[in-house]
Amino acid sequence: MMNHQFRLAARPVGEPKRSDWDYLEEAIRQPADSEVLVRTEYLSLDPAMRGWMNEGKSYIRPVQIGEVMRAGGVGEVIASKHPDFREGDHVYGTLGVQEYATLDGKSLTKVDTGVAPLPVYLGTLGMPGMTAYFGLLEVGQPQPGQTVVVSGAAGAVGSVVGQIAKIKGCRAVGIAGGTEKCRYVVDELGFDAAIDYKAQEVKKALRQHCPQGIDVYFDNVGGDILDAALTQLARGARIVICGAISQYNSTSGFKGPANYMSLLVNRASMKGMVVFDYADRYPQAMREMAGWLSAGKLKTREDIVNGLETFPDALLKLFSGDNFGKLVLKVS
Amino acid sequence: MMNHQFRLAARPVGEPKRSDWDYLEEAIRQPADSEVLVRTEYLSLDPAMRGWMNEGKSYIRPVQIGEVMRAGGVGEVIASKHPDFREGDHVYGTLGVQEYATLDGKSLTKVDTGVAPLPVYLGTLGMPGMTAYFGLLEVGQPQPGQTVVVSGAAGAVGSVVGQIAKIKGCRAVGIAGGTEKCRYVVDELGFDAAIDYKAQEVKKALRQHCPQGIDVYFDNVGGDILDAALTQLARGARIVICGAISQYNSTSGFKGPANYMSLLVNRASMKGMVVFDYADRYPQAMREMAGWLSAGKLKTREDIVNGLETFPDALLKLFSGDNFGKLVLKVS
Repeated sequence: MMNHQFRLAARPVGEPKRSDWDYLEEAIRQPADSEVLVRTEYLSLDPAMRGWMNEGKSYIRPVQIGEVMRAGGVGEVIASKHPDFREGDHVYGTLGVQEYATLDGKSLTKVDTGVAPLPVYLGTLGMPGMTAYFGLLEVGQPQPGQTVVVSGAAGAVGSVVGQIAKIKGCRAVGIAGGTEKCRYVVDELGFDAAIDYKAQEVKKALRQHCPQGIDVYFDNVGGDILDAALTQLARGARIVICGAISQYNSTSGFKGPANYMSLLVNRASMKGMVVFDYADRYPQAMREMAGWLSAGKLKTREDIVNGLETFPDALLKLFSGDNFGKLVLKVS
Repeated sequence: MMNHQFRLAARPVGEPKRSDWDYLEEAIRQPADSEVLVRTEYLSLDPAMRGWMNEGKSYIRPVQIGEVMRAGGVGEVIASKHPDFREGDHVYGTLGVQEYATLDGKSLTKVDTGVAPLPVYLGTLGMPGMTAYFGLLEVGQPQPGQTVVVSGAAGAVGSVVGQIAKIKGCRAVGIAGGTEKCRYVVDELGFDAAIDYKAQEVKKALRQHCPQGIDVYFDNVGGDILDAALTQLARGARIVICGAISQYNSTSGFKGPANYMSLLVNRASMKGMVVFDYADRYPQAMREMAGWLSAGKLKTREDIVNGLETFPDALLKLFSGDNFGKLVLKVS
């Protein structure tokens, strides 16, 4: 049995091209002591992956040229030399963009398919959900009655941010691209309002939907939308910097937020967050989120693309905004 | 006796021109009940004044067309109908760019020329000093042994920021324009290092002088220097947004900090501050600062320009960087 993989062939300039990837096969490596062999079932496709492909200091080591592309995934244990895992267990781990991964058991977490289907462990009960939970609650510090605005509102992180905001008694306003996503955010997820950045002037719409100003702005996109949010901050607002997907493929450099002096006018703050910092509290957050899921307070939606070989194109859906819900690659 | 004044004639586009001002005279108004008539001795010229000339929501009401230009100043009471003030008292207040001001006594604060000369009440013991004190200590939260970087380091705010950083056991690195200012900052004020942004590559110099990264960056200038500081943040760094003098006269809009995603990589924050929020704590801060002054731990320098009529040109020294120390206009 062979293991098919995508390895990074070149550092992309702008949007990753097919030629930035090598599609290879190699023999499956059997686990050594304390290792586990996992068959990948689903891989998580995330905006952050674009950053991992760049050289330079960041919050995580860049993927090296020739290395299997980093990706979180869920799969089934097919061989184990680690006492905590047995054949048939389902696990989450950094499996990489490949069909089989042989990893130290200590890097894996068991997941319970009785609680939620496997892809949910890549979304609401996975890194995106943890990012939303800790980014909003720990960095954003929303108070009941306050207004929380989130960009990428139909996405894996944004959809959870808005729903947690509602659970915590806040007013939730989402920014998303297209009528369908906006309708989903309000009608299905229960946001108070949604702004279609493709059809509306975001600045004006924020003024309309946030008459008391924005108390927490959770930013996944950067660029013009971040600048629009800055014009409508309430006194003492908190901006959570989670991502900047509008800028990741820019070949002319990042666009900084020109309206940042609004931080001074409004005594507001802008703070960056990296979910890994909260790793020791994932279990508690996952329990709480699982409770909300089973109570119907939290809804999830996955956008599942089939086949490992579609990876290069599937990843691009994130940047065009073509995905609707958590983007997941079904591998086997 | 007539009162000469500068009133705002037009909202400037870019750098304020002579024609943006009206130089007028009107009769001195005698104080009504609870009012005080003050003869202006010194006026404070501050970068913030440029912002007050613009229309639009800010942390303070814009100066209206036809209104006497707002300015802090110190002067002598020449007539009083307020019980707390007598002829001959020296006071601080928002006197405006004029020779005489008739104001409610409750807007004035007595100053003691036995503690420090009058111009110092416009600098280290005035708003710039308060801004440095609360901005650094409350927003920046520097810990002993940490590295504090400040731009505009030879200026009224920056010079105090660096000196307080030293008093608090931090390493202080200043950014200033020109050899003379850099020498002053290190040799006279006791900063650990200074970077001449006119002669050096700031990013490279910050790397050299802050090998452990910047823990607190106190920004007075914005633009490229803010972007350079963002490249050298330590984990958990705090950026204090106090001003952006490099951008105030821009006619092409503000330049946002393109490197702001460093806030995410370094779990750092950027927070705006307005000194007025700390007004109830000025007296305590002034006492502490006066103690440092008399102990020789805090040094001040004023750049005094003579004559009310020089106001339009004198103000421009702030933006060209021609002033050296707290810029003060001697009126009488």
